Amino acid sequence: MKKTLAASVIAKHTNDNAKEGAICQVSVDFAFANDITAPPAINAMREMGRDRVFDKNRCAVVPDHFTPNKDIASAEQAKKCREFAHGQGMVYWEVGRAGVEHAMLPEKGYILPGDIVLGADSHSCTGGAMGAFATGMGSTDLAGAWATGKTWLMVPETVRVDFRGPISRQITGKDLILAVLREISVQGARYMALEFGGDGLESMSMDHRFTVANMAVEAGAKAGLFVPDSVTLDYARTRAARDFEPCYPDEGCPYAKRIEIDVEKLTPLVAAPHSPDNVHPASTFKDREIHQVFIGSCTNGRLEDMEAAASVLKGRSVHPSVRCIVIPASFEVYNECLDRGYIRTFTDAGAAVCTPTCGPCLGGHMGILAAGERCVSTSNRNFVGRMGHTESEVYLASPITAAWSAVKGHIADPAEEER
Amino acid sequence: MKKTLAASVIAKHTNDNAKEGAICQVSVDFAFANDITAPPAINAMREMGRDRVFDKNRCAVVPDHFTPNKDIASAEQAKKCREFAHGQGMVYWEVGRAGVEHAMLPEKGYILPGDIVLGADSHSCTGGAMGAFATGMGSTDLAGAWATGKTWLMVPETVRVDFRGPISRQITGKDLILAVLREISVQGARYMALEFGGDGLESMSMDHRFTVANMAVEAGAKAGLFVPDSVTLDYARTRAARDFEPCYPDEGCPYAKRIEIDVEKLTPLVAAPHSPDNVHPASTFKDREIHQVFIGSCTNGRLEDMEAAASVLKGRSVHPSVRCIVIPASFEVYNECLDRGYIRTFTDAGAAVCTPTCGPCLGGHMGILAAGERCVSTSNRNFVGRMGHTESEVYLASPITAAWSAVKGHIADPAEEER
Repeated sequence: MKKTLAASVIAKHTNDNAKEGAICQVSVDFAFANDITAPPAINAMREMGRDRVFDKNRCAVVPDHFTPNKDIASAEQAKKCREFAHGQGMVYWEVGRAGVEHAMLPEKGYILPGDIVLGADSHSCTGGAMGAFATGMGSTDLAGAWATGKTWLMVPETVRVDFRGPISRQITGKDLILAVLREISVQGARYMALEFGGDGLESMSMDHRFTVANMAVEAGAKAGLFVPDSVTLDYARTRAARDFEPCYPDEGCPYAKRIEIDVEKLTPLVAAPHSPDNVHPASTFKDREIHQVFIGSCTNGRLEDMEAAASVLKGRSVHPSVRCIVIPASFEVYNECLDRGYIRTFTDAGAAVCTPTCGPCLGGHMGILAAGERCVSTSNRNFVGRMGHTESEVYLASPITAAWSAVKGHIADPAEEER
Repeated sequence: MKKTLAASVIAKHTNDNAKEGAICQVSVDFAFANDITAPPAINAMREMGRDRVFDKNRCAVVPDHFTPNKDIASAEQAKKCREFAHGQGMVYWEVGRAGVEHAMLPEKGYILPGDIVLGADSHSCTGGAMGAFATGMGSTDLAGAWATGKTWLMVPETVRVDFRGPISRQITGKDLILAVLREISVQGARYMALEFGGDGLESMSMDHRFTVANMAVEAGAKAGLFVPDSVTLDYARTRAARDFEPCYPDEGCPYAKRIEIDVEKLTPLVAAPHSPDNVHPASTFKDREIHQVFIGSCTNGRLEDMEAAASVLKGRSVHPSVRCIVIPASFEVYNECLDRGYIRTFTDAGAAVCTPTCGPCLGGHMGILAAGERCVSTSNRNFVGRMGHTESEVYLASPITAAWSAVKGHIADPAEEER
């Protein structure tokens, strides 16, 4: 039986027959939770009567959502996480050395090609950029994986996405995944896997791929896997915390659907309120006044995202009526931004730069919206009230589009600004 | 009638007889509020039927307490402030260019020697470092000053504090004001003015003085005024947003009380929970384990504070069980820290650096404490629950003591560490 990439990864981790639709018991390579989802997982483990995680080097707690603690409740959650993590000796980073889970974990080599990775967070699919089957689960299921090193997965059908043609300066991973969402909608891959391939991968950096895989869940997908290539393997080898063995889709394997994205023909895209698949060319909204820009998150808080934003903001100023908030997604990224002068570029432009945190993406802190306010955000969701008041609006865009919008004071099209 | 410095400043601003105990109507040189206190002041002005502030160059709104917006309520408050400030054309800085009010306003030359300054915030006394009569008032009184440019002040009695001898590296403005509080208690200057002078001023930078004046209110004082000298006038002249005329105390003027602080004999001090006058040598607590260090706030978020912290953290690491949060108090300070490499020093040490905000000082955001947690903080108040849970503890200290504590993982005495 010829296998898709998702089925190949699952087959490697199970003794069951990994045919599509089958429920297989699989071994788990890595399982993690954050400061919101870990506390219920810790409770669930205790209710199961389990004291120890199955392997302390394969389990992590990453404080990122409401840290540095935004209030007493989040302080209590962070404390519970810290005590559990230290007690287990598991993978953990403290505030000041931490970052957003989906940025930190691949960066530190814990998510690797061919892995099965579970995270108690919907954007755990980000790890799919590594050619891993990485998926989000609830805290209770995660607790089961922490306790046993195993879980059940139904082998999903796959939607194959081929990117055709090279990526240009103004087109980023964000534009590619928005193009996918425009094509297949937020229901287009429900309980399925997305598999990303095609000659377009040749010009796609890991940072572009992380952005694409991150938003696979916005199409309803359980996972979004990039077919590994030399870019993947080079990245993995320099960072790997353990051995790994990549998987590949079989030639001629069955896909539920195939789509192609012609990268060369793409123009910068924006997802308008209140759905990630409400996608239109950035130019559609070009006179729409904005109040805030957020550049960061597990979607677009990596070094190339910061570089793209800095390239726009260098020598320019944030529009006086806009708050521009920039949050690098990890300390590695933050420090590299310091060394390259990007942080100074941001503050010179009048942007506020914060320590790594999820921040305003999920309406947490560090830039919440009031009624009637409009934000261009590089994050992944623009649901009603996602970043604050239910009468606020979020437009999802790439860091380049977001940075240009910050400068202009309205939604801007980089293709036009840089013509 | 011979006048104290406080009485001299008031006399300059009134036609009434500025004798001690008299209630005088005075003109106001500058009046400001923050994102928490401005909204009720705006409401109060409207209830008075007043549309315009008396002078847009002498009135400010500074968003600093819960900005970048920590939640929807603070977003609504910040929005109200922004719209009012823009409508009036008054002094205002947006997130990304703003900072803590008591750091920003003197830095930008709006608080000057001889001024009467009103702020709707208890630490408005910070401006006293400039030789101004700067005091905190409620939002309604502030609204009156915004509307009319006038207010009533009772001429206070004065406690004179003379600092004797030069300040050394390990002794900072924070240690001096803690020494004053140890001496006179939190009730020692209730409704009075503190007047700071003595030969010790010769070696006291403006940053030391701002810290001392900032905490005058912790002794119950309405204001804490430094007698202006060349240090004051040099600082004022290079920054002044308008003309100014310093005032001085008359030789032989009557003081309610006089105290002397022998600066040379001081050792680093700490105020233990739960009062700023519960002051002891830092060495008293040297084995007390801590969980967090906060370096910043209107008390100690200026350049020399950052320099002091960086001098300790350079080449050292924050203890693994400590979160160290560093927040420069203004964008001028933040950018200078970037240029001098302090930010990199902080992040190399494992500290988290945030955009200017009041942050955790008042239990706002960016580092709130859980039950049972202990924090060494460079801020000004350690009341029960000030920085989070009512079962948390705050120890007030200088940036040097705080930085050493961050490194050691317990309260540390710089005099011992640097011996």
